[in-house]
Amino acid sequence: MRFIVADWGTTRFRGYLVENETILDSVSSSEGVSALKSGQHRDVFMRHCGPWLDAEPEAPILLVGMVGSREGWVMAPYASCPAGPADIAKAMIPVDLGDGRQAHIVPGLFYEPVPDAADVMRGEETLVLGSGVTDGLVCLPGTHPKWIEMRAGKVERFATYMTGEMYALLREHSMIGRPATEPEDPQGFDLGLEAAERNSGQDAAHHAGLLNLLFGARAAVVSGRMESSLLGPYLSGLLTGDEINSALSQFARPTSITIIADSPRADLYVEALARKGIATIVVAPQKALIAGLEKIVREVAH
Amino acid sequence: MRFIVADWGTTRFRGYLVENETILDSVSSSEGVSALKSGQHRDVFMRHCGPWLDAEPEAPILLVGMVGSREGWVMAPYASCPAGPADIAKAMIPVDLGDGRQAHIVPGLFYEPVPDAADVMRGEETLVLGSGVTDGLVCLPGTHPKWIEMRAGKVERFATYMTGEMYALLREHSMIGRPATEPEDPQGFDLGLEAAERNSGQDAAHHAGLLNLLFGARAAVVSGRMESSLLGPYLSGLLTGDEINSALSQFARPTSITIIADSPRADLYVEALARKGIATIVVAPQKALIAGLEKIVREVAH
Repeated sequence: MRFIVADWGTTRFRGYLVENETILDSVSSSEGVSALKSGQHRDVFMRHCGPWLDAEPEAPILLVGMVGSREGWVMAPYASCPAGPADIAKAMIPVDLGDGRQAHIVPGLFYEPVPDAADVMRGEETLVLGSGVTDGLVCLPGTHPKWIEMRAGKVERFATYMTGEMYALLREHSMIGRPATEPEDPQGFDLGLEAAERNSGQDAAHHAGLLNLLFGARAAVVSGRMESSLLGPYLSGLLTGDEINSALSQFARPTSITIIADSPRADLYVEALARKGIATIVVAPQKALIAGLEKIVREVAH
Repeated sequence: MRFIVADWGTTRFRGYLVENETILDSVSSSEGVSALKSGQHRDVFMRHCGPWLDAEPEAPILLVGMVGSREGWVMAPYASCPAGPADIAKAMIPVDLGDGRQAHIVPGLFYEPVPDAADVMRGEETLVLGSGVTDGLVCLPGTHPKWIEMRAGKVERFATYMTGEMYALLREHSMIGRPATEPEDPQGFDLGLEAAERNSGQDAAHHAGLLNLLFGARAAVVSGRMESSLLGPYLSGLLTGDEINSALSQFARPTSITIIADSPRADLYVEALARKGIATIVVAPQKALIAGLEKIVREVAH
């Protein structure tokens, strides 16, 4: 079955014509939802994907990502966990394309880890459904990494970390990252992982806390204990290690974890998890996206 | 004994004429070390404190704070822990004021929590020496809060947290703090403390990690689970709670802690520690500073 999709995020628009998990044609532009005003979305979509609509009059059309957020085309309310392809397909929101055609916006997911607490995703649910994992733990690195537990083909629960954004804050706006120099020494990443490991290990006297370890990283550089070229990768390793340790506390610690990311980001997680004796399977995000959308489309076709 | 001091930090210059822990006269200006270039410090000091020097030809003169940093008047190398008044007095660095007078810069302290790691302070060593605590745990809240263990009248070890700077980063530069609204609801502080408590409690499945809890705070607001007026105080409570939990892991958990801070900052720590059944003694920073300097001056006079 052929279908048409737009992976429509904050900064990018990516359109695909797909058949049997194969991309037949694609288009990409910088018209992400943050660049658009209300009322512009239909025109942007039709300009990029209109020719496919004419050529494929029966093809379902799915939109995924921030296009369904408050700042997107139409707000698609979050579906609740646990959620599988059928639950997500049922919660999709239609938008009118004219000439009797409709596109459907894939909703994000909501999860309540403890009463009155909240976690959300928008777009990652589609990738994880296409990851090939029906039972197990999946990690999606990024600005806001997601750790997702799959049970019987559904997203059972998940947790989002602000790791990537925190790294950017420390490098760009904080006195902590100011002494960092380039070229960077990648060995700093391992040192950061080791510090994170002590921080969550058996010995409570070494539970220094992230806020102390971050200050200590700067202090080590300005006092000459650490080379300034190590600092950037050290901060990355410390934050990534803290994220992984927290995720392995929250979720059942598995023998293998699936990572949805391209290199070199995926490599950092592979390395960090290997140090803990955890095997990894790496899946490319684009492949996971298309496979996940195909699963949702098949539910609509039923 | 009379003595003259300057508490010379990054943003403020504060001069005092002191006798028996009583401030006889004082002067203050915005000529902190970050506002000055190399070579300007002597003139600034003499303009503010020169009249006292003339009137008190025998009075010792001490300078404390960032004036001894790389960006200050003269770099005063850190003394190492454990350090008491005599150790600090011995490590002071003289600067020439002309006419045969000298001032002495109080050095900061260096501590190595684990090999190749580092922590530093500059100015807080003087306050803690004047806190009245010879054995016990002292907390100095601020942009970079310090927790200091005193043993037999010496600074035995300490840890710095980036709590205050982290709060500012989240409020000013991060998407996490963006949904926060004013007027703030102070109840959010307690909710943040509770989240920090779960995060370090007995149940590892609730060890969500700070990076997850920070993301969750935003998610709770944008999904309507938390009032936006709670978010600012919630972030403050979460970070402060995480700092306190980490400090109580690193240091022996005492029945009472001395806090060197003015209201309302001191009140937040009093409240957070009371929830844990820990009593607090609050000491005003200015009083601690003067008492600490007097201890150091007496060592010089010996």
